[in-house]
Amino acid sequence: MTDDRFFTRCGPFSLGVLAACSKADLAEGASTAVLLRGIAPLETAEADDVSVFCDARRADAFAVSRAGAIITSAKLAAHRHDCANLLIARDPRFAFAAVGLMFHPRCTDTAGISGTADIHATASVGEGCRIDSGVVVGAHAHIGEGCHLGANCVIGDGVEIGPQSVIGCNATVSHALIGAGVRIGAGTVIGGEGFGVVLGPAGLMCSAQVGRVIIGDNVRIGGNCTIDRGALDDTVIGSGTMLDNLIQIAHNVRIGRNCIFAGQSGVAGSAIIGDNVMVGGAVSISDHLTIGSNVRIAGKSGVAQDVADGAVVGGYPAVPVRQWHRQNLALAAMIKKPGTDA
Amino acid sequence: MTDDRFFTRCGPFSLGVLAACSKADLAEGASTAVLLRGIAPLETAEADDVSVFCDARRADAFAVSRAGAIITSAKLAAHRHDCANLLIARDPRFAFAAVGLMFHPRCTDTAGISGTADIHATASVGEGCRIDSGVVVGAHAHIGEGCHLGANCVIGDGVEIGPQSVIGCNATVSHALIGAGVRIGAGTVIGGEGFGVVLGPAGLMCSAQVGRVIIGDNVRIGGNCTIDRGALDDTVIGSGTMLDNLIQIAHNVRIGRNCIFAGQSGVAGSAIIGDNVMVGGAVSISDHLTIGSNVRIAGKSGVAQDVADGAVVGGYPAVPVRQWHRQNLALAAMIKKPGTDA
Amino acid sequence: MTDDRFFTRCGPFSLGVLAACSKADLAEGASTAVLLRGIAPLETAEADDVSVFCDARRADAFAVSRAGAIITSAKLAAHRHDCANLLIARDPRFAFAAVGLMFHPRCTDTAGISGTADIHATASVGEGCRIDSGVVVGAHAHIGEGCHLGANCVIGDGVEIGPQSVIGCNATVSHALIGAGVRIGAGTVIGGEGFGVVLGPAGLMCSAQVGRVIIGDNVRIGGNCTIDRGALDDTVIGSGTMLDNLIQIAHNVRIGRNCIFAGQSGVAGSAIIGDNVMVGGAVSISDHLTIGSNVRIAGKSGVAQDVADGAVVGGYPAVPVRQWHRQNLALAAMIKKPGTDA
Repeated sequence: MTDDRFFTRCGPFSLGVLAACSKADLAEGASTAVLLRGIAPLETAEADDVSVFCDARRADAFAVSRAGAIITSAKLAAHRHDCANLLIARDPRFAFAAVGLMFHPRCTDTAGISGTADIHATASVGEGCRIDSGVVVGAHAHIGEGCHLGANCVIGDGVEIGPQSVIGCNATVSHALIGAGVRIGAGTVIGGEGFGVVLGPAGLMCSAQVGRVIIGDNVRIGGNCTIDRGALDDTVIGSGTMLDNLIQIAHNVRIGRNCIFAGQSGVAGSAIIGDNVMVGGAVSISDHLTIGSNVRIAGKSGVAQDVADGAVVGGYPAVPVRQWHRQNLALAAMIKKPGTDA
Repeated sequence: MTDDRFFTRCGPFSLGVLAACSKADLAEGASTAVLLRGIAPLETAEADDVSVFCDARRADAFAVSRAGAIITSAKLAAHRHDCANLLIARDPRFAFAAVGLMFHPRCTDTAGISGTADIHATASVGEGCRIDSGVVVGAHAHIGEGCHLGANCVIGDGVEIGPQSVIGCNATVSHALIGAGVRIGAGTVIGGEGFGVVLGPAGLMCSAQVGRVIIGDNVRIGGNCTIDRGALDDTVIGSGTMLDNLIQIAHNVRIGRNCIFAGQSGVAGSAIIGDNVMVGGAVSISDHLTIGSNVRIAGKSGVAQDVADGAVVGGYPAVPVRQWHRQNLALAAMIKKPGTDA
Repeated sequence: MTDDRFFTRCGPFSLGVLAACSKADLAEGASTAVLLRGIAPLETAEADDVSVFCDARRADAFAVSRAGAIITSAKLAAHRHDCANLLIARDPRFAFAAVGLMFHPRCTDTAGISGTADIHATASVGEGCRIDSGVVVGAHAHIGEGCHLGANCVIGDGVEIGPQSVIGCNATVSHALIGAGVRIGAGTVIGGEGFGVVLGPAGLMCSAQVGRVIIGDNVRIGGNCTIDRGALDDTVIGSGTMLDNLIQIAHNVRIGRNCIFAGQSGVAGSAIIGDNVMVGGAVSISDHLTIGSNVRIAGKSGVAQDVADGAVVGGYPAVPVRQWHRQNLALAAMIKKPGTDA
C-alpha cells in the first residue's frame, strides 16, 4: 500500500469499474463488486489492493499473493494462484498503469499562487494554476491553465507554457515554447546557451545562441537534464517523447515523436532523431548525425555514424547489435586460444 | 594553510592530542607539545601545519617538506625527511582524515531560521537547525535536530529527515525518508518520479510512481544527482554508502551499505547492489541486475549481467577485469601482426 | 530571424560596418551601404539578414538563399549563389560569430537589485550589477562590477566573483574565487565538497575538503555541471576554458587555458590537463593522470593513462586514435572470417 504521506488517493473503485477503464476482462469467477483501494506489488498487496503479474519469472509471488485483484494476461493466468479476482488484459503493463493512474491521478494539485512567488506584472497566468513558494516568472511569459510551477523554479522572459504542464522545483526554463501536458523534472535546465565555441584571433569565443527550445505536447523530461536552445535554428522535442534524468540535448537537435531516452544519455549538436526511437541509458549520439525512426540503441553505446530507420545498434562505436554481440564473443574467444594469448 | 574566508578552524591542538585522536604513534624524537593549527599539502605546509605522506611517489616532497608534523606509515618513514615530528599510523590516510576533521569539523553551523524561509505550519523542525534563505519546507515534513537546510532547497510534503543531516543549496527532496547524519549535495534531486514508460493505445504514457526513497544513516550524496522514488516498492540506499556527483539512481534500485559510487555513474531500474561495492566513475549498471557484495567495477564499465560476490569486473560490456585487460592487449597486438592488419 | 521575445537586438548595421568589425572583405559587387538587421540560417534568412556558408555540404542551401548578405570563404564563394552581397573571410565561422555578437551582444542587462534578493550586510556588490529575484549572497562575498546573478542562485560566504561575470539561475557557488567575464550556467554547482572517502575503523568516512575552486577569466561553464573544491590544494580552471553541460570536475583537478570540454565529460580527482585540450562529449579521464597540452580526445573515450602533448586518442581504454580505428576495423573483420566466427 502506498504511503499516504506522499500520495493522494482516489477511489475506492469496484473491480468492474477498474476492468472497464483499463480495457481488461474479468476472469471467470471474478466479482465485479469487490472494492479496491490502491495498488501494490504481488508480495505486499492486501485484500483491497490491485497488483499485476506480467513476468513469468515472478510466478512464485503470483502463486501466494494475497492481493484483492491481479491484472495479468490470458497466458500467464494459467500459472498457479490463490487470487479469486483476475483481470485479463492483452497488455497487463498498460492495464495496470491505467489502474494506477485511477487511484493516483496526476492533477489533484490545489490551485493557488504563493505570496512569495515573484511573477512579473506583464506575465499572464491561466486559471487553476498552482505556483509555489519562491517561483520567479519573467516578463511577458504566458503560463497556461492548470499548470503547476514547483517551488523555486524560474521561468524566463517570454516563455510560453501550455495548459496542464508541470515544472519541477528548482528548474530553470528560458527561451522556450512548451506545449500542453508537459512535465519537466526538478533541477532541469531548458533553454540554456548552446555550446558554440569558435576559435578567434584572441582565443576561444562563444557565438551568440539565438534559437529557441520548442517542446511538443505531453513530453516528459526528468530531473537535472539540460536542453540547450538552438544557435540559429531551434532545438525541438516532438510530442509524446519521454526523457529520463541527467540527459543532455545540445543545440539544434531535433527529436521526433514518442521517443524514449533513458538516463544519462546525450545528443550532440544538430543531430536529427526520428520518431519512436528508443535510446538506452548513458548512450551518446555524436553531432550532426541522422538517426532514423524506430531505431533502438543499446545502453551505453557511442553512436558515431548515421543509423537507418528500424536499425538496432550497440557498442562503442555503435554497430548493428548482432555484429556487436559477435564481436564481443570473438574477443572473449580470442584470449582463450593458444598462440593469441596476450 | 586553508583559506579562512571559507573554512572555520578549531584548535590549535598539540601533537600529543592529535596522535591520540587519530590513533597514531609519535615517532622517536617527536615532541608531544608542539602546537599545530591546520592541515596542508607537503609542499606548502608550514611549521604549524600537519601534512601527510602516504604515497612513495611523493618522497621528494616529503624530503623537503617544512610541515610542523607529518603523518606517515612505519615503512614510509624510512624515506629521507627533514621533519622532526612524525606520526606513525597503520593507515596514514585515515589518521590524516581524522586530524583534518579535528581542525575543520563539519557541524559548526550556527542555528537559526531565515526569515525568508517558507516552512509550512504543519512541518516540525528540531532544535538547533539552521535553515537558510529561500528554503521551502512542505506540509507535515519533519526535520530532525541539528539539521542544516541550504539556501533555496525544497523539502516536499511529508518528508522525514533524521538529525544532523545537511541538505545542499537548490536541492529538491520529496517522497523520502532520510536517516541521521546524511549529507546531500547542492542541486541534487531526491524522490523524483521514476521513469516508467508504458506503450498504451494512445501512445506512450508514464505509470504512477507511488514508491518512496529510503536513505539510511550517514549516507553522503554529492551534487546534481538524481535518486528517483520507487514505482510500487521503494528505492533504498543503505547506511554508510557514499555517492559522488551527477549520479543517477533509478526507481526501485536497492543499494546496500558502505558502497562507494564515483562521479557520473548510474544504476538503472530495479537493480540490486550488495554491501561494500565500489563503483568507478561513469559506470553504468543495467536494469534488474543483481550485483553481489564486495564487488569492484572499473571506471566507465557498462555492466549488463549479474556480478557475483567479490568479483572485479571492467569493460563494455563488463567482464572479469583480468579478461578485460587481456582482451585489450590482444586487440592491440592483433593490428600489429602482418595479415590481420585492417 | 530571431524571436524578439527572447533576444534583444542591436543595429541595424551596414554591410561595410559588419565587414570591418568581423575582419572580412566585401566581395566584388557587394554594397557597403545595405542595412542588415539580424542573423539567420541560409534557408530562412531574408533580405535584411546575414547568413553564413562554411560547409560545402550546404551548397544547395547557399545556391538559393535569399539572405541579404552571406559570409563565406574565398574558396566556397565559387559555389553557385544568388546573393549579391558576399563577405569573404579567412575563417567564416569566426566572422559570423563576430557579426552575431554585434546584433546580439551579451551585456545588455539592465542593472538593479531585486527586492527579494537576500544579500548579506557584509557582502559587497560592484556598480552596474543585476541581481535577480531570490538570489542569496553570503557574508563577505565580493561581486564585481557589471555582474548578473540569475534568479535563485546562491553565492556562498567569502566567494569572490570578478567583473562582468554571469551566474545562472539556481546555480550554487561556494568556496570559490572566480575571474572576470566568467559565465556559469543554470543549476551548476561550484565548490561542492570533494569526494574524499577513507575507510576508517567504524566504516567509510569523508575527509575534510578544505581547498577552493579557482576559475580564471573568460571561462564558460554550462548548465548542471559540478566543479568540486580541492581537498587540500585547489581545483583550478584556466582562463579561456569552455565547458559544456553536465560536466564533472573532481577535487584537485587542474585544467589549463583555452580547453574545450563537450557535454557530460568528466575528470576524476587530481588529474592535470594542459592548455588547448579538446575533450569530446561523455569522455571520462581517470584520477591522477597528466594530459598534455594540445591533446584531443575522441567522444566517449575512457582515458586511463597519461597522454603526451599533442596526442590524439580515442577508445575505451583510450589509445592513439589511429590505433583505435584500426582495432575497430580488425574486430569487425574478424567476425567475417571463417574459422574465427563466434
